[in-house]
Amino acid sequence: MKYKYTTEAEIVRIRNLERSRETDRVVIETPLTIFFNGSEFITLLCSPDNLDCLAVGFLRSEGLITGAADIEQIDLDYQKKIVYIKTVSINGLVDKLYGKRMITSGCGKGSLFFSALDSLQSKRIESPLQVGAGEIFNLVSVMQEKAQLFKSTGGVHSAALAEKGEILYYNEDIGRHNAVDKIVGQCILKNIELGDKILLSSGRVSSEIVIKGAKLGLPLIVSRSAPTSLAVELARETGLTLVGFARGKRLNVYSHDYRII
Amino acid sequence: MKYKYTTEAEIVRIRNLERSRETDRVVIETPLTIFFNGSEFITLLCSPDNLDCLAVGFLRSEGLITGAADIEQIDLDYQKKIVYIKTVSINGLVDKLYGKRMITSGCGKGSLFFSALDSLQSKRIESPLQVGAGEIFNLVSVMQEKAQLFKSTGGVHSAALAEKGEILYYNEDIGRHNAVDKIVGQCILKNIELGDKILLSSGRVSSEIVIKGAKLGLPLIVSRSAPTSLAVELARETGLTLVGFARGKRLNVYSHDYRII
Repeated sequence: MKYKYTTEAEIVRIRNLERSRETDRVVIETPLTIFFNGSEFITLLCSPDNLDCLAVGFLRSEGLITGAADIEQIDLDYQKKIVYIKTVSINGLVDKLYGKRMITSGCGKGSLFFSALDSLQSKRIESPLQVGAGEIFNLVSVMQEKAQLFKSTGGVHSAALAEKGEILYYNEDIGRHNAVDKIVGQCILKNIELGDKILLSSGRVSSEIVIKGAKLGLPLIVSRSAPTSLAVELARETGLTLVGFARGKRLNVYSHDYRII
Repeated sequence: MKYKYTTEAEIVRIRNLERSRETDRVVIETPLTIFFNGSEFITLLCSPDNLDCLAVGFLRSEGLITGAADIEQIDLDYQKKIVYIKTVSINGLVDKLYGKRMITSGCGKGSLFFSALDSLQSKRIESPLQVGAGEIFNLVSVMQEKAQLFKSTGGVHSAALAEKGEILYYNEDIGRHNAVDKIVGQCILKNIELGDKILLSSGRVSSEIVIKGAKLGLPLIVSRSAPTSLAVELARETGLTLVGFARGKRLNVYSHDYRII
């Protein structure tokens, strides 16, 4: 299926006070509603591709599922932009997490933010992965070439998963988090282990991106942009290697630099 | 009170495969927890200034308060990064909204996203504001000069409120939405009417930013970046003028261009 990422809009362009009516391309933003075990759970605003992956990745990142084994059924109504996800058991872990979520107002933040921190502290990333700086320069440049949508509309972020110098999955989305969650969802649905992979992102790395990565055991996150203080702190505590400002033949390593050789 | 926006971090910098240990500046990200009428409501991740404004602006944007008259008390514990907000009545509107919010999982999305759309359709922005393109070019350039934090760390967005060629409020935050919510909160706490003002943003304009603006009756949003399709659609429906890619002596008008003269 070929998705449409951009649409045309009639605009008025002003250049040096000269005015003209033109047709321009605008990046599409669409609401995606996730039904979880029969209840409407959340509506995300996103780019209109890989919606099933986004839903699965979002639920994994929020801790509502732990992997493919938790999912009994996924139905995507592409026209209505609804994904229905049913888990194998509505008792046990999933139920407990869901209960917790409602109490904390449901944004994966609140107490849940701090309890996510607590649980990460007990689970250190020990992956022996090591990657050459030259390999990272190359991956970032390949990702840049793929980022055509960004070039044409200036409105999306990209994320990619890489291994042994190759990009395995690549996604673009109007949301930084969505682009990463689509990668997470693809890995879950294809049973890809993340313990020896590299996550590449075009966007800033905030604490939430590091938490997503650390929960999945990802050893290395590489971004073209800046990390925040909390992202650096969490990366150091969880054993994750965080690389920022990877552009051209330069990069900064903010934590556990032994993985970059 | 002078806030610290950045902190130092020891990093490893790799340039053309040469490696050096250096000290670099990293933008601070801090969790801010909002207690609403005695209950823990949400934790936002943000830059550490204007935390009371952020809390008030967030509650307004999410529809939990309608203005300063709803607020009985605000207490900020800056050390613990907690804001306590108590409303004048926990009955009436606030209570109803809060109840609704919990049902829809609390992200200001879900059904609430669509009901926000419904309510906007009945409330068109009729402000007679008109602004010269030259005035906008000038405001954007003044905002750019202020954006020192972004220049030094590459990690924040800025938002500003302007009137008659002057910037009234200016904020920076690691979150696009937070920067706007800080402006909203400042206006509420200082009883500033928004019906004749301009909101300027460095970041992309998604539907959520237009919804925030339209709820407040803002007639004009100007961004240095791209808008999404849904943002353009909502701006057209609500009567809001949306300007994107305002850089140097150029800009694009996506809706209701009669306000740009």
